[in-house]
Amino acid sequence: VTSPGAGESRVLVLNTGGTIGMTLHDNVLAPKANALVQSLRKLPILHDELYAQQTCLYEYYGSENSLVLPKSLPHPDLLHHSLSKSNKRIIYTIMEYSPLLDSSNMTTDDWGRIGKDIEKNYQHYDGFVILHGTDTMAYTASALSFMCEHLGKPIVLTGSQVPIYELKNDGRDNLLGALLVAGQFVIPEVCLYFYNKLYRGNRVTKVDAGSFNAFSSPNLAPLATAEVDISINWDTVWRANTTAKFQVSTELNRNVGLLRLFPGITALSVRAFLQPPMQGVVLETYGSGNAPDNRPDLLAELKAATDSGVIIVNCTQCLRGTVSASYATGKVLMDAGLIAGGDMTPEAALSKLSYVLAKKKLDLDAKKKLMAQNLRGEMNIDLEGAKLCLSNS
Amino acid sequence: VTSPGAGESRVLVLNTGGTIGMTLHDNVLAPKANALVQSLRKLPILHDELYAQQTCLYEYYGSENSLVLPKSLPHPDLLHHSLSKSNKRIIYTIMEYSPLLDSSNMTTDDWGRIGKDIEKNYQHYDGFVILHGTDTMAYTASALSFMCEHLGKPIVLTGSQVPIYELKNDGRDNLLGALLVAGQFVIPEVCLYFYNKLYRGNRVTKVDAGSFNAFSSPNLAPLATAEVDISINWDTVWRANTTAKFQVSTELNRNVGLLRLFPGITALSVRAFLQPPMQGVVLETYGSGNAPDNRPDLLAELKAATDSGVIIVNCTQCLRGTVSASYATGKVLMDAGLIAGGDMTPEAALSKLSYVLAKKKLDLDAKKKLMAQNLRGEMNIDLEGAKLCLSNS
Amino acid sequence: VTSPGAGESRVLVLNTGGTIGMTLHDNVLAPKANALVQSLRKLPILHDELYAQQTCLYEYYGSENSLVLPKSLPHPDLLHHSLSKSNKRIIYTIMEYSPLLDSSNMTTDDWGRIGKDIEKNYQHYDGFVILHGTDTMAYTASALSFMCEHLGKPIVLTGSQVPIYELKNDGRDNLLGALLVAGQFVIPEVCLYFYNKLYRGNRVTKVDAGSFNAFSSPNLAPLATAEVDISINWDTVWRANTTAKFQVSTELNRNVGLLRLFPGITALSVRAFLQPPMQGVVLETYGSGNAPDNRPDLLAELKAATDSGVIIVNCTQCLRGTVSASYATGKVLMDAGLIAGGDMTPEAALSKLSYVLAKKKLDLDAKKKLMAQNLRGEMNIDLEGAKLCLSNS
Amino acid sequence: VTSPGAGESRVLVLNTGGTIGMTLHDNVLAPKANALVQSLRKLPILHDELYAQQTCLYEYYGSENSLVLPKSLPHPDLLHHSLSKSNKRIIYTIMEYSPLLDSSNMTTDDWGRIGKDIEKNYQHYDGFVILHGTDTMAYTASALSFMCEHLGKPIVLTGSQVPIYELKNDGRDNLLGALLVAGQFVIPEVCLYFYNKLYRGNRVTKVDAGSFNAFSSPNLAPLATAEVDISINWDTVWRANTTAKFQVSTELNRNVGLLRLFPGITALSVRAFLQPPMQGVVLETYGSGNAPDNRPDLLAELKAATDSGVIIVNCTQCLRGTVSASYATGKVLMDAGLIAGGDMTPEAALSKLSYVLAKKKLDLDAKKKLMAQNLRGEMNIDLEGAKLCLSNS
Repeated sequence: VTSPGAGESRVLVLNTGGTIGMTLHDNVLAPKANALVQSLRKLPILHDELYAQQTCLYEYYGSENSLVLPKSLPHPDLLHHSLSKSNKRIIYTIMEYSPLLDSSNMTTDDWGRIGKDIEKNYQHYDGFVILHGTDTMAYTASALSFMCEHLGKPIVLTGSQVPIYELKNDGRDNLLGALLVAGQFVIPEVCLYFYNKLYRGNRVTKVDAGSFNAFSSPNLAPLATAEVDISINWDTVWRANTTAKFQVSTELNRNVGLLRLFPGITALSVRAFLQPPMQGVVLETYGSGNAPDNRPDLLAELKAATDSGVIIVNCTQCLRGTVSASYATGKVLMDAGLIAGGDMTPEAALSKLSYVLAKKKLDLDAKKKLMAQNLRGEMNIDLEGAKLCLSNS
Repeated sequence: VTSPGAGESRVLVLNTGGTIGMTLHDNVLAPKANALVQSLRKLPILHDELYAQQTCLYEYYGSENSLVLPKSLPHPDLLHHSLSKSNKRIIYTIMEYSPLLDSSNMTTDDWGRIGKDIEKNYQHYDGFVILHGTDTMAYTASALSFMCEHLGKPIVLTGSQVPIYELKNDGRDNLLGALLVAGQFVIPEVCLYFYNKLYRGNRVTKVDAGSFNAFSSPNLAPLATAEVDISINWDTVWRANTTAKFQVSTELNRNVGLLRLFPGITALSVRAFLQPPMQGVVLETYGSGNAPDNRPDLLAELKAATDSGVIIVNCTQCLRGTVSASYATGKVLMDAGLIAGGDMTPEAALSKLSYVLAKKKLDLDAKKKLMAQNLRGEMNIDLEGAKLCLSNS
Repeated sequence: VTSPGAGESRVLVLNTGGTIGMTLHDNVLAPKANALVQSLRKLPILHDELYAQQTCLYEYYGSENSLVLPKSLPHPDLLHHSLSKSNKRIIYTIMEYSPLLDSSNMTTDDWGRIGKDIEKNYQHYDGFVILHGTDTMAYTASALSFMCEHLGKPIVLTGSQVPIYELKNDGRDNLLGALLVAGQFVIPEVCLYFYNKLYRGNRVTKVDAGSFNAFSSPNLAPLATAEVDISINWDTVWRANTTAKFQVSTELNRNVGLLRLFPGITALSVRAFLQPPMQGVVLETYGSGNAPDNRPDLLAELKAATDSGVIIVNCTQCLRGTVSASYATGKVLMDAGLIAGGDMTPEAALSKLSYVLAKKKLDLDAKKKLMAQNLRGEMNIDLEGAKLCLSNS
Repeated sequence: VTSPGAGESRVLVLNTGGTIGMTLHDNVLAPKANALVQSLRKLPILHDELYAQQTCLYEYYGSENSLVLPKSLPHPDLLHHSLSKSNKRIIYTIMEYSPLLDSSNMTTDDWGRIGKDIEKNYQHYDGFVILHGTDTMAYTASALSFMCEHLGKPIVLTGSQVPIYELKNDGRDNLLGALLVAGQFVIPEVCLYFYNKLYRGNRVTKVDAGSFNAFSSPNLAPLATAEVDISINWDTVWRANTTAKFQVSTELNRNVGLLRLFPGITALSVRAFLQPPMQGVVLETYGSGNAPDNRPDLLAELKAATDSGVIIVNCTQCLRGTVSASYATGKVLMDAGLIAGGDMTPEAALSKLSYVLAKKKLDLDAKKKLMAQNLRGEMNIDLEGAKLCLSNS
C-alpha cells in the first residue's frame, strides 16, 4: 500500500452533460443528476475500488467524487510502450454541472463557466477532461482553445453517441481514452478525443450523426491514435512559445453569425443578416473562397458591412480546403473587405470572432490582423503548406 | 464506311463554362468563347476525325460543333464487359453558352435556361452532359433534378478542378466518363460524374476544394464506378413510376435561404434572417436534427415564421446523418412547425424549396407535404432504412 | 422476477484461447485457465448478477459458467430499432478449452474439435461465439464455414488485439458485439466479428497486426455494422437452400499448401513444393490470375502435378481481385490444369481444399468441380458480378 | 524559338512492355513493337510537335524516339506552385525493349538489363521512367531499389490497368505524372507512380487487380500526391548520406523463395521447400511475426535450414504491421535463427535477399546483418517508430 498522492496523476473531469450520462425518463433520454459517479464506481474498467480503499483515497482527496483508474499491466518488454512510459495511477475527480446540459443548449456563458472552472483548478490537476454532448462539442472545443491563453496542460473534450448505461456504447472507451491522454501526456492543447483518435479541438467538426466515428479533422491529421497503443504525432502538437501565466478570457462577443452563399441568394437577405448589431460574420463561400463577381448588389452589401466595421471572414463551405489571401479568384471578396480564413473550420472561425471581437483594448485593425493570424494552431498560414491550385470554378 | 446515324448514340453537351474550359488571360483564369470545340477536335482521345470525314459527320448533323468519340476496342472475350454492351459510336454536339459562366456566378435563371435547352432538345438526343464549374455544381444538379419532371434519359453534370488545356488535368477523363455514361446507359436521372464515380445529382456536395476527388455523396452509395470497367449499381438507380411526358419546370422561388445554428446565435439575427420576403429556409441543425430547447426566444422566432407561412426544413449540419420526424429530441423544432428534412443535403433541400414554393397551384399544406416526401430520390424516407439511434446530445 | 428460460436467448461461447483472455506471467503474455469467467462475472457490462440471482440462473442452467447480459434500455420510440427487436435476455455459457491455445498453435485437429463441440450442442443454443486468437482466426473461420454443413444458426468468431484484462482493450466490445449478433439474429453463417463489423468468415483476412481494425473482407461488403445501432445487410446474408440436418464434417486433408509466384521462382523449388504427398495447392498468382507463359520449365512442373492428381487452385496474390476461368491471360495456367479460384481469399481456398480433398466418396473430377463451385458464399461466380477487365500485365 | 537543350530537362523512358502499350491481336491483348512512340506522337497531351519542329528536336537529339511534353501554363500568381517551380520543358526519349515483355514474364535477368540501361545512360538524363506491367511492378521496383547503389536521380516505374489505346484508360495520366516527377524533382529514389500518387518503390504492393487504384504502400505514406498540384512529402524522401559514384549491382541470387505459414502446414512440405539449393527464404508469419511454438517438427526444419546457412527472414502475412526483433512472441523463430524483417513487404524482403546473397565478398554473418539493416528506406528500424503492442495471438 502506497501513500496517496505519490506516483499519482490527477485529472479533473467536468461533467457538463450530454448523451454519455443520459438515462431514460418517461421514454425520453435525459441527463440524470449525481448518477454518473455512482455508475462509474461500479465499473471495474474505470475504477479500482480496492486501491481506493487501501490508499484512503476518498479521505485524502476529500471527495466522494474521486475515482481511480485500474493499473495498466506492467511489462518489462514494453518499456518503450507508450502506455507504460508513465507508471502513474490516474486519479480523476468528477465535478458535475447542475443542471446537466444537453449540448444543444450550450451557450457562450457555459463556455465561460467551463473556462473559469479550469482556471480555478488549474494548479491542482495534471490535466482536464470535459464531458460534453457531441452536437456542439466542436464549437466548445474551438471556443475554449481561444479562451485558454498560455495553456500548458491538456484539456480533452469527449462524450459519446450512446449513453454509458446502454449495453453497447462508445462512452466507456471515449472516457477511458480521454483520461489516459489527459493524465499521461503533456499535450498543452484543447483537444477532442473520439473513437480512438485525439484531434486538435479547433480543427474538428461533427461529420456523422449516426456513427461512433462522429468527428473529423479535415485539414489536419489527428494528434494521436489510441488503438493497440497510444501513438502521438509529436510534430503536430502545438506549442505556444510562451512562459506567460495561464489565464482564461471569458469575454465573448455574441453578435456573430454564419452565412452560407448559394446561387440566387438575395441581396436583401444578406443585408438583413448583416444589419446591426452584427459585428462578425463567417461567410461560407464556394470552393477556394469564391463568390459571384457578377452580383454588384451582393458585393455592395458585403462592402457596406465591412466599411461599417463588421469583420467578415471568408471560409470555404467545402469540408476540406483553404481560402488564401493571395488567390486571385476570391479577389472580389478581398476588395469587399473580407479576411481570408485559410483552412479554418466554420466552428473555429466563428468562435475566434467571438473571442477577438471581445478584446476591448484592440482597435478594429488589430482585431482584423488577429483574425488573419494563426493563434492556436487553428489555421495553416505557412506559405509552403498552402496548396494553391489552378481551379477556379 | 457506314452511313451516319446508324449505330450511333447522340449526346448533347451544354457547355455552361467553368474551370474545365478556362484559359489564362492577363494572368487570370477565365473562360474563352468558342475554344473548347476546337481543342477537343485536336484530342484523339475525344474525337475521331477520320470517322467524321468518312461519314460526312459535319454535313449530316449540320454542325461544326459535332464530335465523335473513338471506337472502343472490340473484344470477343469481353462480350459481357459493360463497355462493349453497346457497340454504338457516341456522337456529341457541343452547345456553348455565351457568355461562358464561372459557376460562382450561376443563378436560378441559368438553371432555367439549362432546363429549357434540355427540354427543347430532349427528343433528338439519347443523353445530356452539362459542363459546369465545380463550385456550385451540386446546387445546379439538385435544382435540375427537381425541375426535370418525368425524366427518361440521363443528364450528367461534370467539370474539372484543372482546365482541360493544362498539362495534367482531370477535365479530359471527367468529360469522357460523362459522355460514356450519357451515351450508353439508360439511367433516367440527373447525375454528377467526377473522378471515376457517378453520383445521384441531388445527393452530392463538394467536399474538397483542392483534390480531384472533389465530390461526395455522403448518404447514398455512388450509382456507378468507372475504372477498369463501368459497373452500375442498378439497384440504386432511381425509376419514377410514370409514363407522363417529360417537361421542365423552370419556375423557381428565390426567397429562400440557409441558416446554420450555432451556440449563442441571437434571436435578433434569426428574426432578421426570417423576415419577409423570406418564404423558405433550410435550418442546419445539430446532429440528428437538434436545437436548443432552453431558448424560448429562438423557438418563438421560428414559430412566428412558420405561423406566417414560411416553410422551414430541418436538416443536419453534419455531413452524414438524417433528421427523422419521429425522433423525440428534435421535438421542439417540430412543435415550432419545422419539417424533418431526412437525409437531404442542404443543396437538395434548398433547391427543393425553390421548386416547391414556386408551384402556384398548390396551397401551403400541399407544399409542406411535398417537402416531406421523396420526389427524386433526394431523401430516404423508408422506415426500414432510417437508422434511429440513442444519441441525444 | 421471471422464470428462467422464458424470454431468454442462449449462446454457447467456446473459449479456445487467444489474446482476449491472456494475462502476464513472468513477463510473457499467456492464457490463464479458468480466469475468463471469473473476470466477466465482475464486469457489469457483460454480466447482470442481480438477474442471475433473481432467476436462479446457475441452478437452472446447472453451471457456474453461465452469464447473462444486462438488459438493453427499453424505448417506445425505438420500436423499429434493431437492438430492441428482440427483447430477449442473452444467456451465455462459456466452455473453456484446456489447454487454452495461442492461435498460432491452432491445427486442423483443433478445428475439428470446435466443429464437434458445436455439433454436440447445436440443439441447445440459439447461437455460438468462438473466442480465438486473431493470428489464424481467418483460417479457422474459413475452415468452419466448409465443415459446417446445412448450418441454420449463427457461429461468430471473435477475439481481440489487447487482452480483456488490460485497461484499454478491444476485447470487451468485440465479445459484447459477437454475443448480440449470435443471440439476436438469424444469420445462418460462420461469421467473424471485429471492431464493430460483422464479416462472412470465409471472406476475411487479417490485414493489420497493430490496429483494432485488424480484419478486412476485401471482396465482399460486411454483413453488418454495429455502431449506434446494428444494421444488417440482409441482401448479403447467405442462405443455403436446404432443410437437411446440420452436421459437421471434421475430415480434413492436411497435404495442402500455399505457393506464391514471384519473378525468378525456380522450377526446382516449385517441383520440391509439389512433390508427394502434396495433394492440393493454392497458387498465388499475379493480378487477375496471371503467370509467366515464357517459362516452360515452370509450367511443366505445374502440369506434371495436376496430371498426377494434385488439385491446384489459381488465386490472386492481390488483396482485392478475381481470377476468372474465361479470362484469356491466365490461359497457360488453365492449360496446365489449374482451377480458377475466383475471388476466394487464400485462407478460404486452402481450407476448402482441405475439406474437399477429404471427401472420400468423391473422385478427383467431382472434387475439382466442387472447388470451382460456390459452396458457402466464399466466392462470387455470378457472371454478371464478375468484373472482367482489359488489364493484362 | 529557343535552341534545343537550353531550359530543357531530359528523361529516359525504358518501355519494357506491359498493359499500357498493348493492343488487340486475334482477340488477345499483346504488346506491339514500335507502336507506342507513334501513338504518343499523336497525343497533344503528351507531345508538342510544334515545339519539336521549331527546335529541330529530332536532329538535335539524334532520335525519332524523342518527344517533348507541352508547356505548362505560366501563372505569376502561382510562383510557389510546385508545377511551376521548374519552367523547363521535359524532353523524353523512349527506349523500347525487344521483345516487349508481359510483366508476368519478367525475370531477374530483365531486372539486370534495366539496371544496366540506366547505368549506361545515367549521366545523360535528369531522370528515368520505366514502363512496366502492373503484375510484377512492385517486385521490379523493390529489386531496382537495392541494385541501384548511391542513386542520385529519380527512377519512376509506372504502367496502367488499361491500355493507352483504349478509350478510357489510366495509361496517359500515369505516364504524364511519372514524367513530371522524373523531369522536375530531385527525388533520388526508385519510385512507383500510380493513380496520382508517388510511392517508394520498395514499399508498395499490388492490392487490387481490377481498379485504377491498384497499388498500396501499407507501412509508409506516399512520397507525393499529384492532383490539383504536386505536393511532395520532403520529410519522407530518402537521402543516402553518400557522395559515392552511382553504380548498378546486377548480381542477384535466384535461390530464394516465399513460404507462407498456415495452420496444419506439414514439416515435410517445409523441409521440401527449404532443401538445397535454397539459400534465402521469406517466411510469411502470423500477425507480428508469430509461429506455432508447439510444433517442434516445424521449428526443427527451420533451425536445420538456418544452421546450414539458409537466411530466413520473418515477415508478417498481414498487409500492415511489423515484425520486431525484441518482441517476445516471435521468440521461437528467433531461436530458430530467423531474422526479423520489420515492416518490409514480401516483395522487398525477397529482392533484398536476392541482392544481399549475391554479394560475394561478404560472409554469411555480414549478409545477415545487412538483411536486418535499413538499406534503402525499405524498413523502419527506428525504435521510436516501432509500434510495440500487447497483442499476442
